[in-house]
Amino acid sequence: MSTTQTTRVTAEPALPFVDVVREFNAPAERVYHAHTDPALYAQWVGPAKYTTAIEHFDARSGGAYRFSQTGPDGERFAFHGSFHELTAPSRMVQTFEFEGAPGHVSLDISEIENLDGGRCRLTVHSTFQSVEDRDAMLAAGMTDGMNEGYDRLDGILASGAA
Amino acid sequence: MSTTQTTRVTAEPALPFVDVVREFNAPAERVYHAHTDPALYAQWVGPAKYTTAIEHFDARSGGAYRFSQTGPDGERFAFHGSFHELTAPSRMVQTFEFEGAPGHVSLDISEIENLDGGRCRLTVHSTFQSVEDRDAMLAAGMTDGMNEGYDRLDGILASGAA
Repeated sequence: MSTTQTTRVTAEPALPFVDVVREFNAPAERVYHAHTDPALYAQWVGPAKYTTAIEHFDARSGGAYRFSQTGPDGERFAFHGSFHELTAPSRMVQTFEFEGAPGHVSLDISEIENLDGGRCRLTVHSTFQSVEDRDAMLAAGMTDGMNEGYDRLDGILASGAA
Repeated sequence: MSTTQTTRVTAEPALPFVDVVREFNAPAERVYHAHTDPALYAQWVGPAKYTTAIEHFDARSGGAYRFSQTGPDGERFAFHGSFHELTAPSRMVQTFEFEGAPGHVSLDISEIENLDGGRCRLTVHSTFQSVEDRDAMLAAGMTDGMNEGYDRLDGILASGAA
């Protein structure tokens, strides 16, 4: 299926939130699995030119994760957090810290709901420690990175790999 | 020592934050320990009339916790979350969910710095999913509960138990 999906990103100026809505051509179960299976997650998360290596990924409520991404020039970025809640196939609540900006932690609440026609809708509500932190993450290319990742996820879902 | 400590609580109307500052008559190491040792934590956290029972408390970066509090009439409230980061003796980053309001998760970033005279200052920056969530937590008595807890912690620190 070659339909291009669109990602809707909302970031109100005076509040430390980013809200993302994206639909997928797959049921919630498969999109949830692609977020919580580390081998699948590594295949799509982040900007297209980066390769992801999972260090640990204990995908359960109360677990934690760490992964790194390596770019074409060998630059490497690492990220870690904890899973506050993972409830298949509809809800993921986790912390997120980019180790290039240590001490700045955000909380992501993701919900997946099934739609008609075997599709689903993912909504992500990200909360930052400050409006400045939120703005810095947007300025660093958060939205493009997410979009490129979701486009890769579309490909994986279409191929049947996830 | 019978000096009454004061807790400064800041909650700006249009932002989903609560900021707390409290000083203790003890060095950072002891206040950190009283937050991360489950047996000690159970002795002081929360409103004075409640008794705390720890269900699990894996006090390490990437760990998780759950505890409940029982009141004088047998009413029982449970709380859980994950530890994004615990770095002795200065930094604790954890999620928090009151199970009486399921799905509403906050992120607490606590820092402890030593002051002159063997004292320390605790600052807690709590971030909520929405301003409404923040206001509901304040309306539910968050500030009184914290103050009563910190007063009990003062007593434990003065007694030398922590």
